[in-house]
Amino acid sequence: MTSFDQTRSLFHLPQGVIYLDGNSLGPLPIAAKERVARLLSDEWGEMLIKGWNQAGWMMMPRKIGDRVGRLIGAEEGSVVMGDTLSIKVYQALASALDLVPERKVILSDSGNFPSDLYIAQGLIGSLARGHELKIVEPEDVEAAIDENVAVVMLTEVDYRTGRLHDMKALTQKAHSVGAVTVWDLAHSAGALPVDLAGAKADFAVGCTYKYLNGGPGAPAFVYVSPRHADKVRPALSGWLGHDAPFAFDLDYRPGAGVDRMRVGTPPIIGLAALDAALDAWEGVDMQDVRRQSIKLCDLFVNEVEKRCPMLTLGSPRDGAKRGSQISFLHEEGYAIMQALIARGVIGDFRAPNAIRFGFTPLYTSEADVLAAVDILADIMQNRLWDTPEYKQKALVT
Amino acid sequence: MTSFDQTRSLFHLPQGVIYLDGNSLGPLPIAAKERVARLLSDEWGEMLIKGWNQAGWMMMPRKIGDRVGRLIGAEEGSVVMGDTLSIKVYQALASALDLVPERKVILSDSGNFPSDLYIAQGLIGSLARGHELKIVEPEDVEAAIDENVAVVMLTEVDYRTGRLHDMKALTQKAHSVGAVTVWDLAHSAGALPVDLAGAKADFAVGCTYKYLNGGPGAPAFVYVSPRHADKVRPALSGWLGHDAPFAFDLDYRPGAGVDRMRVGTPPIIGLAALDAALDAWEGVDMQDVRRQSIKLCDLFVNEVEKRCPMLTLGSPRDGAKRGSQISFLHEEGYAIMQALIARGVIGDFRAPNAIRFGFTPLYTSEADVLAAVDILADIMQNRLWDTPEYKQKALVT
Repeated sequence: MTSFDQTRSLFHLPQGVIYLDGNSLGPLPIAAKERVARLLSDEWGEMLIKGWNQAGWMMMPRKIGDRVGRLIGAEEGSVVMGDTLSIKVYQALASALDLVPERKVILSDSGNFPSDLYIAQGLIGSLARGHELKIVEPEDVEAAIDENVAVVMLTEVDYRTGRLHDMKALTQKAHSVGAVTVWDLAHSAGALPVDLAGAKADFAVGCTYKYLNGGPGAPAFVYVSPRHADKVRPALSGWLGHDAPFAFDLDYRPGAGVDRMRVGTPPIIGLAALDAALDAWEGVDMQDVRRQSIKLCDLFVNEVEKRCPMLTLGSPRDGAKRGSQISFLHEEGYAIMQALIARGVIGDFRAPNAIRFGFTPLYTSEADVLAAVDILADIMQNRLWDTPEYKQKALVT
Repeated sequence: MTSFDQTRSLFHLPQGVIYLDGNSLGPLPIAAKERVARLLSDEWGEMLIKGWNQAGWMMMPRKIGDRVGRLIGAEEGSVVMGDTLSIKVYQALASALDLVPERKVILSDSGNFPSDLYIAQGLIGSLARGHELKIVEPEDVEAAIDENVAVVMLTEVDYRTGRLHDMKALTQKAHSVGAVTVWDLAHSAGALPVDLAGAKADFAVGCTYKYLNGGPGAPAFVYVSPRHADKVRPALSGWLGHDAPFAFDLDYRPGAGVDRMRVGTPPIIGLAALDAALDAWEGVDMQDVRRQSIKLCDLFVNEVEKRCPMLTLGSPRDGAKRGSQISFLHEEGYAIMQALIARGVIGDFRAPNAIRFGFTPLYTSEADVLAAVDILADIMQNRLWDTPEYKQKALVT
């Protein structure tokens, strides 16, 4: 049984803050401070270039990849870290399309995170071979998977609504028509149980700064099913994906398995912070996390609906059909969120009208949820959001 | 006049080490420890998601890009940080090829860093439109620039020999035949004066963990000439290169200027370390660095040739024709370097036979150079490298 009192003690949470935005940027794991300081002073500072061997820097993308892999049901040795989620989408999608060269349709949905769609558009432009990005509504995805589809590219949990796709069923449908899948786990990894191997997923990608608490701009991950890993062509064929990076051959020859998805020199400081952050997951049962997440989300939905009738639920009501976040809709959502933040309740806003709250059992309790609802109810009942200050938009929303 | 005694005090150099490998990984700037600790505790820890605005994280890629830009003669607002050098090569090369769509030849040389060549090979594979990577010897590049060439893609300073290309002359030649240039400044930025604007360079890329001391896997940079920046198509069209990232449109629309070269969420911890590292360049005159670099390199060459006749100079003898590094060749180079490292003189080895030493006036003195030669001479004269231990190759060489 997971002790959430124990996991909560591993994070730094500022005084007076109820943090419901761990789905955007997880809080600082206390261990990350010491781990990063040690990396700088004892590894970079003292070992200098020798750190690549002595401190194991060169192996970190694979070693940490396996740590992340255990949280998402990946086979050992099938996940590697590096770059950003958008770069990993590009790699996965390019490799996926290569597996189905005779087809031209990339199927996605309007609930996918826009960057995934942008990356697909850019790749289509480079390929210039008549590929098409077909975007349907989330509920129409299953019916749209047909023999024309090369790749089904979806984010499992919708970044705005929290709606959860059925990864196993959609992957099965894709395979039944000869298509392959690219799953974006940005809002899944660390939020709910994921079983990539069990679902027979082909490719998956994700970031680590949300539920995995790796820090702002933490390295991304890519999963390639062992069924494909030795045959895919890496589109971003950098030297660390080469079979023998330090032979300095003039010709590229892909490394074995998922190693070929490595590109350039890995971001060691960021990887060290992430490595420390992953310590919080040792001994945590993802089924416990899921149960507690649904409990916190349900509590929030019920209390808000009772006390703030002017807000409309923008997430599935059934806990089994969503990730670990809840959105409520209101045309003044931006100002409402600013008012909440000013009172120490941190969530975020997603255009055009969603206020979004992430629920993270590792460090968020039922008491936090109730206290947050008290503040939200006060703001809504007394229209405390209705000031010019709160309506003034900042760069990052 | 630059005070190198002063700059030296800004770095942590381990006891008993003479560090001649700053061309591979620069040493720890003392200020980076405090800056990163502050980022973790005061920014990530206390501001959480608000750090993107309040601490200016979102603007760091451009702000630090301008700091790097000042060291390489780039116009203000023409450089942006992110990802790795290999990713930036992909972006720059894809955009460059788009500017000359009717031509199919990418011209490079055998002295280019292999990853740049691998990335070109991968891009050619994706484009699948008959492009060709033509690799000539470095001294044959100028003659090979003709009307068939779309892009001249070169590393200004050869990673093995230190040979320096004439950026201005080769760029002029490229433009005279209608080709565009991609310059890799991995061994140039912080090593010698670079004048991108004066040379009318089209694109440039580089890493920041060598002479700029940003730490292992520090973020890379890309420069796009203001002549091109508003018209190039970004191949890696991620959300932060979008004109309005937080509008979450379904369609990509490139941002203004070099902003379109941004891809995903920037690596803030790495950027913070780099930002602190760049403080060491405040008040430093790159002409002073160049003079001192040539002085240190010449001293090393002269002393080694006098005392180690069994080593063959692998770098240009003329200081004006090389960067800030010296290679000597010997068939047992790997073992020789291991013996040096065991004695506290850190350089590195590049296959097949080069021992390579970087000279970095910011923290390396003439006394360091003389002490290093004493040790090298002892190792060579007494064949101290000739042990099984030193011949055993490690993962990273």
